[in-house]
Amino acid sequence: MIHILVTNDDGIYAPGIKMLWQELSRIGKVAVVAPDSERSATSHAITVNHPIRVDEFCVAKDNICGWRISGTPSDCVKIAVEALLPEPPDVIVSGINQGPNLGTDVIYSGTVSAAIEGAMHGIPSLAISLDSWLPSTADDFRPAAVFAVRLVQLLQDHALPPNTLLNVNVPALPEDRIQGVAITKLGVIRYKNTFEKRQDPRGRIYYWMGGDVMDTANEPDSDVEAVKSGKISVTPIHFDLTNYAIINLLKGWDIK
Amino acid sequence: MIHILVTNDDGIYAPGIKMLWQELSRIGKVAVVAPDSERSATSHAITVNHPIRVDEFCVAKDNICGWRISGTPSDCVKIAVEALLPEPPDVIVSGINQGPNLGTDVIYSGTVSAAIEGAMHGIPSLAISLDSWLPSTADDFRPAAVFAVRLVQLLQDHALPPNTLLNVNVPALPEDRIQGVAITKLGVIRYKNTFEKRQDPRGRIYYWMGGDVMDTANEPDSDVEAVKSGKISVTPIHFDLTNYAIINLLKGWDIK
Repeated sequence: MIHILVTNDDGIYAPGIKMLWQELSRIGKVAVVAPDSERSATSHAITVNHPIRVDEFCVAKDNICGWRISGTPSDCVKIAVEALLPEPPDVIVSGINQGPNLGTDVIYSGTVSAAIEGAMHGIPSLAISLDSWLPSTADDFRPAAVFAVRLVQLLQDHALPPNTLLNVNVPALPEDRIQGVAITKLGVIRYKNTFEKRQDPRGRIYYWMGGDVMDTANEPDSDVEAVKSGKISVTPIHFDLTNYAIINLLKGWDIK
Repeated sequence: MIHILVTNDDGIYAPGIKMLWQELSRIGKVAVVAPDSERSATSHAITVNHPIRVDEFCVAKDNICGWRISGTPSDCVKIAVEALLPEPPDVIVSGINQGPNLGTDVIYSGTVSAAIEGAMHGIPSLAISLDSWLPSTADDFRPAAVFAVRLVQLLQDHALPPNTLLNVNVPALPEDRIQGVAITKLGVIRYKNTFEKRQDPRGRIYYWMGGDVMDTANEPDSDVEAVKSGKISVTPIHFDLTNYAIINLLKGWDIK
């Protein structure tokens, strides 16, 4: 029986992780280690200057049990693999995120960073997100959860190359309206009007980061376009940030 | 006169940013927009669920002025470029970090993420770190600050390719003992004994993330080896996480 570690960045109480947990339980032994509250946009932050609390988390009526962590998604994967689980899991699934993690937004994503952390530990990992920011019911997450099950099964027969993980985005559509699966590259997402300047009740200024997504041109083989056309997007991700292509260019600069 | 935006993740009161600020002021107009306290290991986290406070920060005796931000390094770059500065800076310098940002550790670094955020805005950016975790005096940061000045000047004559930034690590040595400059790729850093399990005064368990760096083999052209041999390491970094090399492999999996 495969051992599956499940985490997310919306927190252990989020509907997306519960659906993922239930569906993956059909095919493996699931350990949930997830943040105690929402940690969206925490990227790959880790907790080094504070203690991390670990509490058991059980929902008797659903017969599910896990650990609730006072930390980030990356903390969850680290502490699960290095301290909590008796042995490393066979696969890590992070999600199902409420909202897409597409293109350049992936850089900010706690959901994707948890899967990157898994891959850094040499464990096959995937991140999965639902393309809907609206409050979703449990059923809205079902097509994504079903796809996660299929992908985890596929990962038993196909080895991912080292230092690679999968980033999956699922359109917010009923299963019979999803237009298949596309293997994609990351696109570009740009925002405008990012900061709102406001006044607090005491007259002091503060800023709040918001922003409207701009209609940026993206190539047809990008994740952004795939999801826009109703397809599930699967993007292979790596975490080697070296830009090898320009090493020789830099050597020519004669930096001293 | 070039306009330089300076930020960091050790916070606006750290000695590294002060030295950087002072040295860069010799060659350009410097705007400092930095976190109000230490934000190490915050990676590319951004603040979306809380207001961000912006306060002017002036040290009269040094004749320096900037903005102190209740946010992460990436918040600082975003808010500087999109809300505070009258026009985008010509170059962004993040640092000087107290402690190295080498190899796989770059993923966790707030210092490097600030420079990535700069490059995402199309602005030439670099991150610079001192290879010393020990409390450092202002003078310890001087060789790094001098090198930052040189690199910023170089960036006026040489254009960085799009979506690229530079990650610089400087050995903690007096300037005359530094063994030159190496253009490098990111190496690998691994830790052991990452989590300590402890008991609080009330008998409850908590964990604290620490970890000892393992002696991992790294290639001679890696940043880790360059700094170890007394050289300043300059690594070109990109932020496209797509693993293009395995897109065709995945297409062969016939995912449905």
